[in-house]
Amino acid sequence: MANSVKDLMDFYKDVEREVYLDIENSAPVASDVLEEMLPYFTTRAYGNPGVTHKLGWEAYETVMDAAETIAKYIGASTAEEINFTPGDTEANNLALLGVALASRRDKGKVVISEIEHLSIINIVPLLKRMGFEVVKIPVDGEGFIDLDALSDAVDKDTILVSINMANHEIGTIEPLKEAVEIVRDRNPDAYIHSDASDAYGRIPIDVSSLGIDLMTLSSYKILGPRGVGALYVREGVRIERIIEGQVGTQRLWPGIENTPLIVGFRKASDLMFKDFEKLRGYLGSLRDRLIKGILDSVDDTILNGPQGDKRAPDNINISFLRSEGEALTIELSLYGVYASSGSACTRRMLTPSHVMTAIGREYEAAHGSILMKVTRLHTMDDIDYVLEVLPKAVERIRSITPSGGD
Amino acid sequence: MANSVKDLMDFYKDVEREVYLDIENSAPVASDVLEEMLPYFTTRAYGNPGVTHKLGWEAYETVMDAAETIAKYIGASTAEEINFTPGDTEANNLALLGVALASRRDKGKVVISEIEHLSIINIVPLLKRMGFEVVKIPVDGEGFIDLDALSDAVDKDTILVSINMANHEIGTIEPLKEAVEIVRDRNPDAYIHSDASDAYGRIPIDVSSLGIDLMTLSSYKILGPRGVGALYVREGVRIERIIEGQVGTQRLWPGIENTPLIVGFRKASDLMFKDFEKLRGYLGSLRDRLIKGILDSVDDTILNGPQGDKRAPDNINISFLRSEGEALTIELSLYGVYASSGSACTRRMLTPSHVMTAIGREYEAAHGSILMKVTRLHTMDDIDYVLEVLPKAVERIRSITPSGGD
Repeated sequence: MANSVKDLMDFYKDVEREVYLDIENSAPVASDVLEEMLPYFTTRAYGNPGVTHKLGWEAYETVMDAAETIAKYIGASTAEEINFTPGDTEANNLALLGVALASRRDKGKVVISEIEHLSIINIVPLLKRMGFEVVKIPVDGEGFIDLDALSDAVDKDTILVSINMANHEIGTIEPLKEAVEIVRDRNPDAYIHSDASDAYGRIPIDVSSLGIDLMTLSSYKILGPRGVGALYVREGVRIERIIEGQVGTQRLWPGIENTPLIVGFRKASDLMFKDFEKLRGYLGSLRDRLIKGILDSVDDTILNGPQGDKRAPDNINISFLRSEGEALTIELSLYGVYASSGSACTRRMLTPSHVMTAIGREYEAAHGSILMKVTRLHTMDDIDYVLEVLPKAVERIRSITPSGGD
Repeated sequence: MANSVKDLMDFYKDVEREVYLDIENSAPVASDVLEEMLPYFTTRAYGNPGVTHKLGWEAYETVMDAAETIAKYIGASTAEEINFTPGDTEANNLALLGVALASRRDKGKVVISEIEHLSIINIVPLLKRMGFEVVKIPVDGEGFIDLDALSDAVDKDTILVSINMANHEIGTIEPLKEAVEIVRDRNPDAYIHSDASDAYGRIPIDVSSLGIDLMTLSSYKILGPRGVGALYVREGVRIERIIEGQVGTQRLWPGIENTPLIVGFRKASDLMFKDFEKLRGYLGSLRDRLIKGILDSVDDTILNGPQGDKRAPDNINISFLRSEGEALTIELSLYGVYASSGSACTRRMLTPSHVMTAIGREYEAAHGSILMKVTRLHTMDDIDYVLEVLPKAVERIRSITPSGGD
């Protein structure tokens, strides 16, 4: 492996420009975020918030202040409703398994959409093992959940409904307000969780007016550090820890609060919400220029997910027929453009993503899809560079792909 | 809260020297470790190791190289046996709950020592809920486990035995080799886990010659970053994930590998093992000077835990009779010396730690205990400063403490 990777790396020496768009699978920390974090690693507030000395008190203030700030950004009532976790995956697990554990029932029903992130989809076997029935709500060709199916699925046995706010692969902004009304109408006692990893900082969120009980927030997707995320839990929601240990300010996730990463998460949030509407507009203009540019310049392409206001402003997902997405990813990377073929779930397996299957993409379109996300640090010049090299990359991959796909 | 904390902070303005010894509860990242981490946040290897482009391949190489290095330090066979987790707490939970889940039995027995960290002790109710019997092995006055009791406890129903390598509060180095022999003799199929959070990088570890199946390793306790830890799992051990999601190189903990933190963990390890025996000797000399200095200069003191080679080289834990530990912690902090009264588990509750109770400390001694740990960055001057101010702090606290204890 080492040698082949070194050989590959030689290809990159002549790359003049680099545009990283694989935000779905991982992201750098923005330098203005890192700068804010730095003192907290070595000199500031590095104590345990539960301990009675200067470094502990500083940490307590810092963590609670970050929680209060993030609570404000999503319309939550108190800092205590924001529960920091080691990441989005842990927040989603805590929401589903924590509510299931707390229900103190051996059975019941959990309802999710069929296009949730794998950190929800893959919990299903655990929930079933605990005795719960799990129902997946289908989506239409653009990824919108079937509200009639939701209404049919929710009943008096339903303990939890989980529907993502914006889909991680195709950007679909779900009709959450309507979904919440349906769930409340069918069963006022069922909790509603939303994975907002792809919405927080990019789509307006008000948990109070939405009537959401639990919500997952991501740090790395807004260029904050990996290693931290949050689960909003409305006061009064019955939920239990899913791992145990020493409990500090974060009653739902034990272990030492990770102050430097929490500071980064907060700073990344501040930078998204500082001039929120302007930023949203900027992201949307980058997105639309990239989508239009590709659809105009490359034939046999299909946009995955909806357009305009119903799509997350940072999401671009396009299928290139007659080309294999993984190969196209590699070819693009030789031009310094980093994207992915759907989510990284399928490392070395090359099975199409469950999201692509759910919206009805056939084998060829599902395999030829490329996922890109733009951030506040991307420029129009970045987009123009991608539009310059992408057609060449597609042409080359198509030229070496056996006709009729595989 | 905010105002009182600001008032407290004013006290610290005149502190001339600061000596942070509360490594048990949290720690700064050493600046040489942070320096190594920095490029990985913003410019290097920030991709997902599962994705086929430059930043992904760089990440794959970096993560696997760190795993291989850490494997070598503990005598493990392969990089795949090192499973990175978000921390020690998660590694301990994965070991106990993951083995219990994989046993595919509704009952069985788990044996632990009664002085394990709370991230093991507090799992007991979950294990019981899953149908397992849990037996706690008592310890003697210095914290050494009762090997006869261990022999009595382990039987054919035992699926897992968990004994810490060095105790987090009192530094006791457990007779693991003898314990492993006893367990193997009683039940060759039982797995053996050791929480080595307080041993890794300070006590020689060879999982192969010890015959250990699972081992928890800590990053922050050797001045690496929080947010990462590891569970060694011997090849062939049956264990399942305890949370679900997108699985990359780390098959036992889903989510994106945290490359910058893994790099820090690896660098912190390198710095401990570079000149290991010399460092161990240095830590031991700091420890012994501090212990002897305190016992010589302050009356009515009791060392908690053993002395010499049977004690972790970084651990100092002393009970000051006629003084309340929490108050003493605050008083010490006004001199710039940061320590804690046992572990931070008991925030605002002031109940004595289960470790103090297990070694037979009565109320007064348990409440008056101060825990300190030294690191490779501490100096003899630091120790001398602590020895200068600590007697004054104890004298003042004793003067305001009602006679007869509380």
